[in-house]
Amino acid sequence: MTDTIPHWLTKQADLSPDHPAIEMNDGTMVTFNELRESSQRFARKLTYLGIEKGSHVGILSTNQIPMLNAIHALSYLGAVGVLLNTRLTNDELNYQLKDANATFLLTADSLKEQASMLQVEKIHSFSDIDVLPEKKAILETELNLDAIFTIMYTSGTTGFPKGVVHTYGNHWWSAMGSALNLGLDKRDKWLIPLPIFHVSGLSTSIKSVIYGMPIYLLEKFDVKAVHYALMEKGVTIVSVVTMMVQRLLDVLGKASYPKELRCILLGGGPAPKALLERAKEKNVPVFQSYGMTETASQIVTLSPTDALEKLGSAGKALFPAQLKIETQADDSIGEILVKGPMVTKGYYHKQSANEESFQAGWLATGDLGYLDEDGYLYVVDRRKDLIISGGENIYPSEIEGVLSGMKQIKEAGVTGKSDDKWGQVPIAFIVKEMDVTIEEIKEYLQTRLAKYKQPKEFYFVNDLPRNASNKLVRNKLNH
Amino acid sequence: MTDTIPHWLTKQADLSPDHPAIEMNDGTMVTFNELRESSQRFARKLTYLGIEKGSHVGILSTNQIPMLNAIHALSYLGAVGVLLNTRLTNDELNYQLKDANATFLLTADSLKEQASMLQVEKIHSFSDIDVLPEKKAILETELNLDAIFTIMYTSGTTGFPKGVVHTYGNHWWSAMGSALNLGLDKRDKWLIPLPIFHVSGLSTSIKSVIYGMPIYLLEKFDVKAVHYALMEKGVTIVSVVTMMVQRLLDVLGKASYPKELRCILLGGGPAPKALLERAKEKNVPVFQSYGMTETASQIVTLSPTDALEKLGSAGKALFPAQLKIETQADDSIGEILVKGPMVTKGYYHKQSANEESFQAGWLATGDLGYLDEDGYLYVVDRRKDLIISGGENIYPSEIEGVLSGMKQIKEAGVTGKSDDKWGQVPIAFIVKEMDVTIEEIKEYLQTRLAKYKQPKEFYFVNDLPRNASNKLVRNKLNH
Repeated sequence: MTDTIPHWLTKQADLSPDHPAIEMNDGTMVTFNELRESSQRFARKLTYLGIEKGSHVGILSTNQIPMLNAIHALSYLGAVGVLLNTRLTNDELNYQLKDANATFLLTADSLKEQASMLQVEKIHSFSDIDVLPEKKAILETELNLDAIFTIMYTSGTTGFPKGVVHTYGNHWWSAMGSALNLGLDKRDKWLIPLPIFHVSGLSTSIKSVIYGMPIYLLEKFDVKAVHYALMEKGVTIVSVVTMMVQRLLDVLGKASYPKELRCILLGGGPAPKALLERAKEKNVPVFQSYGMTETASQIVTLSPTDALEKLGSAGKALFPAQLKIETQADDSIGEILVKGPMVTKGYYHKQSANEESFQAGWLATGDLGYLDEDGYLYVVDRRKDLIISGGENIYPSEIEGVLSGMKQIKEAGVTGKSDDKWGQVPIAFIVKEMDVTIEEIKEYLQTRLAKYKQPKEFYFVNDLPRNASNKLVRNKLNH
Repeated sequence: MTDTIPHWLTKQADLSPDHPAIEMNDGTMVTFNELRESSQRFARKLTYLGIEKGSHVGILSTNQIPMLNAIHALSYLGAVGVLLNTRLTNDELNYQLKDANATFLLTADSLKEQASMLQVEKIHSFSDIDVLPEKKAILETELNLDAIFTIMYTSGTTGFPKGVVHTYGNHWWSAMGSALNLGLDKRDKWLIPLPIFHVSGLSTSIKSVIYGMPIYLLEKFDVKAVHYALMEKGVTIVSVVTMMVQRLLDVLGKASYPKELRCILLGGGPAPKALLERAKEKNVPVFQSYGMTETASQIVTLSPTDALEKLGSAGKALFPAQLKIETQADDSIGEILVKGPMVTKGYYHKQSANEESFQAGWLATGDLGYLDEDGYLYVVDRRKDLIISGGENIYPSEIEGVLSGMKQIKEAGVTGKSDDKWGQVPIAFIVKEMDVTIEEIKEYLQTRLAKYKQPKEFYFVNDLPRNASNKLVRNKLNH
């Protein structure tokens, strides 16, 4: 039996009309009632354009209030938002718009010119919509948890972008799983430095509406703006990726964060242990987590009580979720499988990808990991990043972790290179913190890594290739 | 699409094995891991008895750990618990056991003798089960939210007891709704002074498992034991009925509760405003709520932030729930209708009652109320004629039905009378068919009605007040 709930924004505006929903770093503040009003107005203007129940509508925007209005407006109409990464090329965007059957595109004002080159018939900037008349519309008063809310593309392991379908239920359950792990406090304020077109930003925006909790929204990641918000703005939780933690700790220096900051939720891949130890020394509450677009954000998180004891672990599956490792033969490392009502029901019209990835409700993540004797997950690597050298499995993140433990190194990326003798060998790309030679690095690794894991080549670079959510893209490491 | 979650007790024992799950006032403490172990052992012993998936099993017990073991054990087997009120007569219990198709009965040791008179083939006390061997059983690892967890009887408006079916989902959503209202704090400890065979006690026991929160369990309500727990045992939340608040405030005198006590959740009917004001004066955090067996506990609650401003209101519908008033003509008072995934899907095999009570997902509660200009619910009359005595619902029609079963009685009308100790007590108005004494009537009722349902006063009258359509007008019953 499908459950329905009241429309989440209407309900929260009803329960906490004057409570802050969104704060921006320019001082803008929007209450839940204002967010409902503006989103419903937006919906009636979209109705004027012909957008209706079942329409698929692209959204191309950086983090800003009109983007959230657009997302909520589509939900009021029963239309589906296709959230687009602003860093993509027009070819990539066209592929996603077509694949998702999007017939409209809504864009941030600043992106309209770029968007006008895209192959969608109807393209409107947020300001275009602002001046439209409102047309009477029947706005949804309830949300069916099985109905499609958004589609968001992920490259996955195969390299072909696939549209991850998120239902209202996926987000609802994600919010519940997170609350059961982190607790719910009326004083919470969650900082979003990551894009809303990625699942981390979107899911936090929805948690805000479900919990009645303000978000502090940054248009984009900026270490100084994040630092300022954490120090001065009463932020209690922030979602980040590894690189951001590194830079935040640098800026923090010898200072410490206010005690209200109770959780720095770290996603986006395995974190170097040296970094986690550095955070621990400074009493910075970094919690590792594990999740992906398909799981509507984190699905495994290290709980506050275990954060210190299980450093390096991503924790246990959230309350509504399950986790298992599919191992081969006698290896304890294997593919991570997850299950739970926050997991997508599948990729948009990708029958074969769905059959491959989903078995009896379990999603095969393509990631590698193991469970320790207490059942805590350690994520070893993305399977596609695995380097196989002379029959040995080499996990780039392990080597990167060791390298970043060297104080002269700021960060490192490791990938595999074809090799006649070994099949593949690891090679390393280094961003220096201070002067260091390759000889010094090699010597440092002697005692710390097995011979076969030691990179065969080293390259100094100014920065590492990262994707829009700041994740290291190892297959773009080259020299 | 039906959602499944991991078995809640297994999952919590996995997440917080050593965290307290149950504390009793004799000092007993049980962790979540111990609760899982003992419940799974219990399940294997029940398997030895022949209890299996789909079995309906009566549970007749006061609040105690083996009762919770029994409830969880049945869920591990996919069997259905039929929770019985220990105050009922054997006739009443037999009716419920038969109606619910219960083929087994598990009882507290102290109730086994009484239970042995009941018409169920297989009756076992908790101690009987304790000494049984365990039989290998396939224990459920997941809970399907649509599957039946328990059946609990309520007399409803017609006077005929009906089995309210609670699914796992009903309890899950009730727990989520409550958490979104009250917040979730790792330091929470919820005191249960109300019976687990009622929905209040049962739902808190399940919240405990879902939240990873200890309950402080009293075998029965005892004002001194509750007061002691609130003062000394770190209790943060307690569920009570009006009569208990009155007595607690008396005992509290000029003292005040520790600040950890953040919520006294008041259910079981409208509270006198004088009482709420008295609590407010003493800074005692009483939150009115509204709910019933059919809603798996509270569905409308006054949130902490509104508690003072909206004294006398039951608040707003919990986040996943909806509320409306069905008014006649220009009256602002009307019947209260509720909807949400915590609301029962229906009464056990009562097709016509279900059709009458449920319309398009809305449950017609039979209660009267109105919404103020801000949308806050005020309950005017808890079902028109319901008598609430010491937190127990007494339905006049049920007592009238039993009275009219006596051949000397032509007809009877029952109404409530204010009572200092119990809030209300039932009193009866009798039209004789032939000669009969009050003593004979009292004797007749001894075996047929629970003590608390037996009228405290009897009046012989020539006829009963009826309206134009010949319906009994109970509020005109007087002497």
